[in-house]
Amino acid sequence: MPSISKKGYNMPASPIRKLVPYAEQAIENGKSIYYLNIGQPDIKTPKVALEAVKQNDVEILSYSRSEGSDTYRKKLAKYYNNHNIKVSHKDIIVTTGASEALLFLFSSIMDPDDEVIISEPFYANYIAFSTASGVKVVPAVCDIDDNFALPSIESFEKLITPKTKAILICNPGNPTGYLYSKEEIDKLASIAIKHDLFLVADEVYREFVYDGHKHYSIMQVDGIDQHAVIIDSVSKRYSMCGARVGCLVSKNKTVMQTVLKFAQARLSPPTYAQIASEAALDTPQSYFDDVIEEYVDRRNTLIAELKKIDGIKVAKPKGAFYCIVELPVKNSDNFAQWLLEHFDVDNETIMVAPAGGFYSTPGIGLNQIRIAYVLNKESLVKAVHILKEALKVYKD
Amino acid sequence: MPSISKKGYNMPASPIRKLVPYAEQAIENGKSIYYLNIGQPDIKTPKVALEAVKQNDVEILSYSRSEGSDTYRKKLAKYYNNHNIKVSHKDIIVTTGASEALLFLFSSIMDPDDEVIISEPFYANYIAFSTASGVKVVPAVCDIDDNFALPSIESFEKLITPKTKAILICNPGNPTGYLYSKEEIDKLASIAIKHDLFLVADEVYREFVYDGHKHYSIMQVDGIDQHAVIIDSVSKRYSMCGARVGCLVSKNKTVMQTVLKFAQARLSPPTYAQIASEAALDTPQSYFDDVIEEYVDRRNTLIAELKKIDGIKVAKPKGAFYCIVELPVKNSDNFAQWLLEHFDVDNETIMVAPAGGFYSTPGIGLNQIRIAYVLNKESLVKAVHILKEALKVYKD
Repeated sequence: MPSISKKGYNMPASPIRKLVPYAEQAIENGKSIYYLNIGQPDIKTPKVALEAVKQNDVEILSYSRSEGSDTYRKKLAKYYNNHNIKVSHKDIIVTTGASEALLFLFSSIMDPDDEVIISEPFYANYIAFSTASGVKVVPAVCDIDDNFALPSIESFEKLITPKTKAILICNPGNPTGYLYSKEEIDKLASIAIKHDLFLVADEVYREFVYDGHKHYSIMQVDGIDQHAVIIDSVSKRYSMCGARVGCLVSKNKTVMQTVLKFAQARLSPPTYAQIASEAALDTPQSYFDDVIEEYVDRRNTLIAELKKIDGIKVAKPKGAFYCIVELPVKNSDNFAQWLLEHFDVDNETIMVAPAGGFYSTPGIGLNQIRIAYVLNKESLVKAVHILKEALKVYKD
Repeated sequence: MPSISKKGYNMPASPIRKLVPYAEQAIENGKSIYYLNIGQPDIKTPKVALEAVKQNDVEILSYSRSEGSDTYRKKLAKYYNNHNIKVSHKDIIVTTGASEALLFLFSSIMDPDDEVIISEPFYANYIAFSTASGVKVVPAVCDIDDNFALPSIESFEKLITPKTKAILICNPGNPTGYLYSKEEIDKLASIAIKHDLFLVADEVYREFVYDGHKHYSIMQVDGIDQHAVIIDSVSKRYSMCGARVGCLVSKNKTVMQTVLKFAQARLSPPTYAQIASEAALDTPQSYFDDVIEEYVDRRNTLIAELKKIDGIKVAKPKGAFYCIVELPVKNSDNFAQWLLEHFDVDNETIMVAPAGGFYSTPGIGLNQIRIAYVLNKESLVKAVHILKEALKVYKD
């Protein structure tokens, strides 16, 4: 039997999805599950997007342009300009989700064994895309006790080697909910310019910013044009995870021409999803106001409930819809599996994402989990209650 | 300014799409273009697929499972069984087009510097996916004078080295229209088994088989289960290129588990497109009968018209909707560009795909073009007339 590749062998399993078989077994055993593990919001997709697809008049479902349809890119450029990100449609390549944007970017700017510095904990799939590209992740460790703030500029610069090609952040952050300040972004930009690195920001949670804070994009920094690349997606903004539409934004023409070659090789992004995404840009502000209010409410409820549990630590998120929780357990992988296999309160249990997969530093985060507050308040209260009861009896 | 990667630099531009800027300029200059360069059929998508999307009742456009929705995979398994490919839904992973299936497979079975043998000329993007994965393409050269039949088993085996991991064919072939016989498939299977290689078949044109021939899939060969991987797509079958839904089919569980990790990293295939693809499986046979009749008619017209031109060679396709044409020119890249920039008949010109990009052997195919017969007969007759007139005056 022919063997698989080393790369395939080393590819990490998704920390968010690897518990699925246990969840399926739990359901077969008659349990209900509160899904805190995955960033799949329960918020309805804007009607304007859903209707555009229902009313579409496509007769031949053709390829679009590899870089995405012109009408969508032009409207998207307007959206960015409204958010003080001054770009034209030529600075945008539409991708099949933010995932593809990251994969194309990694292939375009990094060769195997090159290094990317990522503030840790980070979105677990950054490791997957790095593995797929043969790129080495160098973590800039952030601490739950500092609320996951950016490490000092000095400790950041110590991580730079001749192999370093880029710094990657997620702002606001998945899995931390951390929102970078203008000062932090300026600091990162100055490091990128000084050391001639790319600064890549995954800004898919741009709209999800709370407590009166403002999102400050890397592309608002003066002089960053040749270094900055934004990764974006409609998935979270419009609760359209299943569309699979994202984009890559940069004013660096060499990068864009290179990314376009990868985009051409896969022909085009999905057509129906582009119809939905283009229409979604007409979503009224009231939709976002309601959604933000809902998430703030959920976050406050979640944090308040979690704080009632002895022996846990939680960093208060300022954005996105995740938080990292430190538990009085040794190995949250085992704990998460145990919750599905061996625990319930009135036949209900919870599914959480073990946080080990959000770290590349060995041994860190093993006692942490990520909670996505994508359920309504009542469900969150019940879910935290289950967590509390579980911790009373769990032994590892 | 930070530099791009060597990989990005080496990534080939799409031979099918690199002439687009010249085409746009030609249109601005008032010319009409017959597009013979791209496999975008003008055939209508089945109504049953279009209607399913229009009637969808999605309220939250959620992620699907990473391996594709269960209902779609189960129905797809039935389709394969009806085509004598005995698989269950567990042997299928739904991907974002055949492109993604190939990319995931290359990453799963080959490391950088591993080798894949591909019968040449081949679909140009095989080079792109190989470059993206750092894999070396070893061409098994087929000859237009042999109608692009498979080379002898001996010459094939000479190409195998310790680095060889797979043999990749496209059946029926893009860009040749060549249909492999049962004997040829059996021969390839025996080589794969003997040398412990994967045998990968891109069978996206399975339905497009003419003159009473039957398609014989690699997965119909006894004893091939651990070696065979089928790459498939709805793009051509249902004229749904813009859906971006394909799949990977294999009974090798290690391969499937590895591909699934890559699939999980990109979360899920597009939801609307899966709705369309699932419904498309109910397309009545009469749709295909009409389409096949139309393509045979087009092929016959195209070949008959081409044969009227002195000094050209054409291999008669038995499947798919492409043919390779050898022209009395030195460099078809220059010729294709010249057609757009400097030639017209009554303000009409043609866009063709220079065939150099379908070969990896240096110097071969430079006098060839690929023609996709995806236009109606009247247009094809006009297009070939333009080619004939162009060859009378072109000097290279």
